[in-house]
Amino acid sequence: MDYRLEYISKLFEKTSKKRIETYVISRLWHLLSDLDVRFVPQQYVKRNKEKYALTDLYLPQIGMHIEINEPAHYDSEEHIEIDNKRKEEIENKTNHSVRVIDCRDSIENIHLQIDTIVYEIREKINLHKINGVFVPWENGSEFSPDYHKNKGYLKAHEQPSLRTIDDICALFNVKVPMRGYLRQGATMHPTEKDLVIWWPNERNRIWENEISEDGTIIFERHHDIEKRKKHVERVVNQNHRRAVFFCNTDILGFTFYRFKGIYVMEKEQTNPETGIVWKLIENEMKL
Amino acid sequence: MDYRLEYISKLFEKTSKKRIETYVISRLWHLLSDLDVRFVPQQYVKRNKEKYALTDLYLPQIGMHIEINEPAHYDSEEHIEIDNKRKEEIENKTNHSVRVIDCRDSIENIHLQIDTIVYEIREKINLHKINGVFVPWENGSEFSPDYHKNKGYLKAHEQPSLRTIDDICALFNVKVPMRGYLRQGATMHPTEKDLVIWWPNERNRIWENEISEDGTIIFERHHDIEKRKKHVERVVNQNHRRAVFFCNTDILGFTFYRFKGIYVMEKEQTNPETGIVWKLIENEMKL
Repeated sequence: MDYRLEYISKLFEKTSKKRIETYVISRLWHLLSDLDVRFVPQQYVKRNKEKYALTDLYLPQIGMHIEINEPAHYDSEEHIEIDNKRKEEIENKTNHSVRVIDCRDSIENIHLQIDTIVYEIREKINLHKINGVFVPWENGSEFSPDYHKNKGYLKAHEQPSLRTIDDICALFNVKVPMRGYLRQGATMHPTEKDLVIWWPNERNRIWENEISEDGTIIFERHHDIEKRKKHVERVVNQNHRRAVFFCNTDILGFTFYRFKGIYVMEKEQTNPETGIVWKLIENEMKL
Repeated sequence: MDYRLEYISKLFEKTSKKRIETYVISRLWHLLSDLDVRFVPQQYVKRNKEKYALTDLYLPQIGMHIEINEPAHYDSEEHIEIDNKRKEEIENKTNHSVRVIDCRDSIENIHLQIDTIVYEIREKINLHKINGVFVPWENGSEFSPDYHKNKGYLKAHEQPSLRTIDDICALFNVKVPMRGYLRQGATMHPTEKDLVIWWPNERNRIWENEISEDGTIIFERHHDIEKRKKHVERVVNQNHRRAVFFCNTDILGFTFYRFKGIYVMEKEQTNPETGIVWKLIENEMKL
């Protein structure tokens, strides 16, 4: 299926429990009718030290959040004030704009509010295009091994992504490593003898790996404390680097393996309890 | 909430399990952007003596069905042939047009198919308007007691509808009849002494009432066979007419009490097993 169709139809599905929200988001999407513009649902925004917010819709290319306020948002002065404060904090913290759609009114009035916002989105995109800073939404081709091969490199800050382990292996022209019927979690680079290509999951039944927010540290550890110990003992004396494709499943259920860089083991911090600690040494690699 | 917003957002919600269908229906709705046009989901169509079809979307005002075919519809020659035969039968049986959206292709191509259909819908509506036969979609005001009072009559073929028992009673300026905390199932007309205003449910925990497809016969019967017998015995010797507002919940979960006409008891067919049989004698009444 077309990636963008899959993405946006999943976005509608995700909000289908909130009928009015789906109605408004689908109208914004269809009236804007621009496949170069990405919609992101439930965007995480840090408000202050303790609090965060999830905005209903976010357009990352133009830094605009859209909040769809169903009638219940206006049921008390207190509720209205909380919403206003939240809006203000998000705008101050992110420098993004926050637009609010008030759904108390007639359908005609809701349509009018949407028209106004669609107009504003178009204006902002045009301005970004004129200034040469508009980056169109990926259409799915950016996830193919060939796309990266043609580029000739991976740079972590561009968030190069692949959708399957098969694609990672295809990128390096190696066979998918199997143990019986199971895919293994890593394979050797075909030419660089001390480089392992590794695609860890953040957290699953067996592993509880973790990556730091800035991407510089990865903890690799088995759930089972005994197996964790054995794993550390086996790996700690191997001197290899790892090219890491960290696996992540997003809010719409899309799984991606994103290149994070080349890592080496931090032996001093590695121990049977913490697991293996990997430290970033390069954030790009040639292909 | 605005009735049309409630209706169409429930329609999107209803199809939310079929992502592509919701995507296509929402795009048709938002691009057409005409609040006078009604969308009906899963329209029942009789194909032949044994078979029926439920079309994905139906526009009753212009007699157009729209089928949204996800890729699986094209997985075999057999499946394609079945779909074609079904389309042909629906068109022959109803004299409606059936349009098919093929969702195998790119999102751009799906958009193009939708644009074409939206254009066709607009053309048809314009033609209906020119010919003076276009009836705009009800916007909810048609369900208020005042709307009917101002009209001064109820005619069954116009499907006059109310949304609550309170509204039925308000229409006749009578108090809602209570038995303890429960609403009763009928009340006396305020001036016509032999006329009962009745709002039966089709089927619930207590009653298994039934109305014939053409609306001329109503069966009134209690689930419990002993109580059914007692009920028949009590009512059979009362000589009253009934103004009937038959209760029905549609596919989107909207409940309506629709005026069906004035009925009298068909004593010969009434018996403790069949229950009470009511026969239509008038399909309109003055207010």
